[in-house]
Amino acid sequence: MKRTHHCGELTTANIGETVVLNGWVQTRRDLGGVLFIDLRDRSGIVQIVFNPAYSGDALQIADRVRTEYVLEVKGEVVQRDAETVNPNLPTGQVEVRITEIEVLNAAKTPPFFIEDGIEVDESLRLKYRYLDLRRPEMHQTLKLRSKAAKVFRDFLDGEDFIEVETPILTKSSPEGARDYLVPSRVHDGEFFALPQSPQIYKQLLMVGGLERYYQIARCFRDEDLRADRQPEFTQVDIETSFMQQDDLLGMMEQLMVKLFRETIGVELETPFQRITHAEAMSKYGSDKPDLRFGLELIEMNDLLANSGVKVFSSVIEKGGEVKVLNAKGCGTWTRKEIDDLGPYAARYGAKGLAWIQVKDGEFKGPIVKFFTPEEIEAVRERTGAEEGDLLLFSADNKKVVADVLGALRLKIGRQLGLIDDSKFKFVWVVDFPLLGYDEEQKRYVAEHHPFTRPKDEDLALFDTDPGKIRAQAYDIVLNGYEVGGGSMRIYKRDVQEKMFNAIGLSAEEAKDKFGYLLDAFEYGTPPHGGIAFGFDRLVMLLSGRTNLRETIAFPKTASATDLLMNAPSAVDASQLEQLHIRLAPKPASTKA
Amino acid sequence: MKRTHHCGELTTANIGETVVLNGWVQTRRDLGGVLFIDLRDRSGIVQIVFNPAYSGDALQIADRVRTEYVLEVKGEVVQRDAETVNPNLPTGQVEVRITEIEVLNAAKTPPFFIEDGIEVDESLRLKYRYLDLRRPEMHQTLKLRSKAAKVFRDFLDGEDFIEVETPILTKSSPEGARDYLVPSRVHDGEFFALPQSPQIYKQLLMVGGLERYYQIARCFRDEDLRADRQPEFTQVDIETSFMQQDDLLGMMEQLMVKLFRETIGVELETPFQRITHAEAMSKYGSDKPDLRFGLELIEMNDLLANSGVKVFSSVIEKGGEVKVLNAKGCGTWTRKEIDDLGPYAARYGAKGLAWIQVKDGEFKGPIVKFFTPEEIEAVRERTGAEEGDLLLFSADNKKVVADVLGALRLKIGRQLGLIDDSKFKFVWVVDFPLLGYDEEQKRYVAEHHPFTRPKDEDLALFDTDPGKIRAQAYDIVLNGYEVGGGSMRIYKRDVQEKMFNAIGLSAEEAKDKFGYLLDAFEYGTPPHGGIAFGFDRLVMLLSGRTNLRETIAFPKTASATDLLMNAPSAVDASQLEQLHIRLAPKPASTKA
Repeated sequence: MKRTHHCGELTTANIGETVVLNGWVQTRRDLGGVLFIDLRDRSGIVQIVFNPAYSGDALQIADRVRTEYVLEVKGEVVQRDAETVNPNLPTGQVEVRITEIEVLNAAKTPPFFIEDGIEVDESLRLKYRYLDLRRPEMHQTLKLRSKAAKVFRDFLDGEDFIEVETPILTKSSPEGARDYLVPSRVHDGEFFALPQSPQIYKQLLMVGGLERYYQIARCFRDEDLRADRQPEFTQVDIETSFMQQDDLLGMMEQLMVKLFRETIGVELETPFQRITHAEAMSKYGSDKPDLRFGLELIEMNDLLANSGVKVFSSVIEKGGEVKVLNAKGCGTWTRKEIDDLGPYAARYGAKGLAWIQVKDGEFKGPIVKFFTPEEIEAVRERTGAEEGDLLLFSADNKKVVADVLGALRLKIGRQLGLIDDSKFKFVWVVDFPLLGYDEEQKRYVAEHHPFTRPKDEDLALFDTDPGKIRAQAYDIVLNGYEVGGGSMRIYKRDVQEKMFNAIGLSAEEAKDKFGYLLDAFEYGTPPHGGIAFGFDRLVMLLSGRTNLRETIAFPKTASATDLLMNAPSAVDASQLEQLHIRLAPKPASTKA
Repeated sequence: MKRTHHCGELTTANIGETVVLNGWVQTRRDLGGVLFIDLRDRSGIVQIVFNPAYSGDALQIADRVRTEYVLEVKGEVVQRDAETVNPNLPTGQVEVRITEIEVLNAAKTPPFFIEDGIEVDESLRLKYRYLDLRRPEMHQTLKLRSKAAKVFRDFLDGEDFIEVETPILTKSSPEGARDYLVPSRVHDGEFFALPQSPQIYKQLLMVGGLERYYQIARCFRDEDLRADRQPEFTQVDIETSFMQQDDLLGMMEQLMVKLFRETIGVELETPFQRITHAEAMSKYGSDKPDLRFGLELIEMNDLLANSGVKVFSSVIEKGGEVKVLNAKGCGTWTRKEIDDLGPYAARYGAKGLAWIQVKDGEFKGPIVKFFTPEEIEAVRERTGAEEGDLLLFSADNKKVVADVLGALRLKIGRQLGLIDDSKFKFVWVVDFPLLGYDEEQKRYVAEHHPFTRPKDEDLALFDTDPGKIRAQAYDIVLNGYEVGGGSMRIYKRDVQEKMFNAIGLSAEEAKDKFGYLLDAFEYGTPPHGGIAFGFDRLVMLLSGRTNLRETIAFPKTASATDLLMNAPSAVDASQLEQLHIRLAPKPASTKA
């Protein structure tokens, strides 16, 4: 016997054919002398029938098979009786009358059902990932992931990019607190590090004249544990020479168009919206705004700077900010419903949450009494507040106001059903600030990395107001998720020096930290820049999942553990000895 | 200005066009007021001309550029004068008259010439890899590598394989003496390991019902240093379910056909020759024979078992072997030339090298006197020895004879010009032995790995003569290089038990070593098997290189060092502390 067809592809077109199938027993039903089995392979399910009329021998063998046994069967495809047609199954019009069967393997009863939508503890699914992967939705996701990688590659190959593999065993970076280290057996006392990204290598490839590079690259970050992070993750890493930011962004839009078209049949509109980082923060309180809905934040400083509402004017006086979110239609909420927003806002740093209801044509709420009638009118006009609206105020420093109202915007948008989950809304956030001021270190630090190119028109600000310099840096945001980001890189020596100077890095320190890259830059570096897409997250959004682990064949848990293999694990002392390392003594127990 | 063309693509078809080019200065020649520059980008080179007649400003700027400066230029493509046409350059019919120039970047003088065929110490090239990569032959190799990966993927995608990424942070294997370990920061005292191959994961994916999997996978082996190995290497990893060995091998042949056709335009003939491991060892003294030429080894045991040539008959009596290589036409060599083969053979274990020259119609040489005339006739007939031939004898245990004559076969084949370097000769070596006897441990060990499936017809030998069992294991060999290998895997519990039993592994030990895989096998494992191709080596052979490092963008040296980044390197004590490890004290110096 030799497989001729896949289970899920049999239709009425195959009626009369003799087929050989391989697959797993999904279910068996014994109807007293006649046995029905749903046979499953990766293509789907088909019903096969054992009946003494077709073969008594086959029936006898089939009688002892159980769920998840592996079978090879041969038989004739026939039309099902009208009353047994299963319209929910693509193969539901037909069944296969089995004349020969071989049991390729037996199976123990699995710890959970091999079907979609099971409600099983995720740790059990991860421990038995090889069974979990048999479920159609896991198959489909892995297939989609494979297809997505192919589309990325096809597009980039078509644009004359060269795929280059960069090293996994590389050098610990100077700020490599989150590097995974790898002791060298051959070089006593020395270590490799796993790359957090191929950043340096891709820039060196540009110095090397490759002009267009990509790689679907594994990256590693030994981060503190967070639910939506994996210690190893995949990014589509792209770098180009002699291209301007606008051209690169346009090309990447076409890449996204192809990706969504060829994986899930969705047509994206181009060009994607582009908003500056400043506008994103101002209107949406986020550098990765979800633009599937409006509900923009509204500036209030000019209206309330001299107001008698001291809780606002005092904040403004101290350089802070007052902003409002008009939660349309939420003015009818009960006091309790409104009060429940307080603790939520507090999670994002709010010390309190002032609000005004518009009810019976009037502003109502604890703070209304502090407003003058003119101020009420001004607020009404600015916010467009109408009957039944709820105005939520945040007054604090810029960051807290953005965090609080940005989070409330998302919460209320979702609560009000403003978010169309079938929509894919891309936006480029551009003009990120080049530098941020670190209050602790009392100095500027690079927001992205110290090779990010400032905008040409902002170069003069290095001497006057470095904090205002905008970078040629951009993120690509989809439905509120950052799915990629990058920048044009500095390639001129004088600009690089200004940058190091701005972040307080002496020539010696710079050489110490970035020596080989700075050396390389001396030999004719082309203008270059690039982008990296978070591949796991893109696949998550393409497949409509909400958990990165669902998109990875063998993921690690939020505590960075592989439950299937039981890794990490202790190793033999002899292995450590070979590597010239020892375990540090455990900290003394605090118990008596 | 915005790039309109690449340097290397300009031809007479572009004459009259105004073009904008980007690139590096390959050479500059100042002909007194007229400046010629060869401008290079990754597509090739074109001559650009600065002349006050086209633009005095441009000439003035161009006057200060030097080798490897990065330029953006604009000008008109014109026909070269007949006497200045360069037939060696694809763009040699034209030149570009420059009207505008921008110097994008300056460059220091590189430590070696940016051109093909340079004779420079490899360590200098690796230290300045970003300059080395600018050389056309490096570009071409990386491009070929990228293309080869694409062809692999296109073929496998077309055959419904799913590309799956398996973890890099995984578990140390029980025989993981060559595993790279990665200390876990989060899990004190525990370690991940980098995979030597995705073997276990790909088998789990088959248990998971994926049916067809592939991955171009990075693998890691902390081996003792060898010139032709890299600590990290790339393999094309493939696994299938429900396929027989013959079908898989046939499919892989089609994959190779496509690969050679689409990368280097070579048409391979199929089916590839298949020879058994036993035949390969017997005829060529190697399990990776170069079949571009004949020069087969000839068995002598039956002829010489009872011979008076004691040096041979005594070896045969002790269970050893006598074989001959007929070095056609080498009978005219001088005594010194023949004697020089001795030390070469000794490197492969030979204690001596007996020989016979056929000269003036007679056998000559020190051992001839021990032969009877009948024996001489028998040897002449068996070896086809003719006037001017040289018979080289090896008498020892099987392994030494194979090693010695296998090596001599290659050496003499090359010396005699029997090897056609333009030929690509594939051969499958099949039926590898399942078990080898370990004299030290006094037990059988798995030759491949303990999940390799024995041939069905040899199963009974588990009870009688395990050493004779042939495996469903195969290598694919190209021009004497092993470029891939794999096996069908055991999927039946009873066969697996016989295997563990044969290698002396108790049920408990097996569970301890391979627990999760054996667990998985309980739940309905399909028949499966696969192959892995050594991608670096294939690219090396495709590109006509002889050194794996030439095929890798950023390789490590034979001593596992990255000369560009200077990795591995020492790390901060604080980093080790975070990882809960310490350096072992250095062994005490042996100096006084």
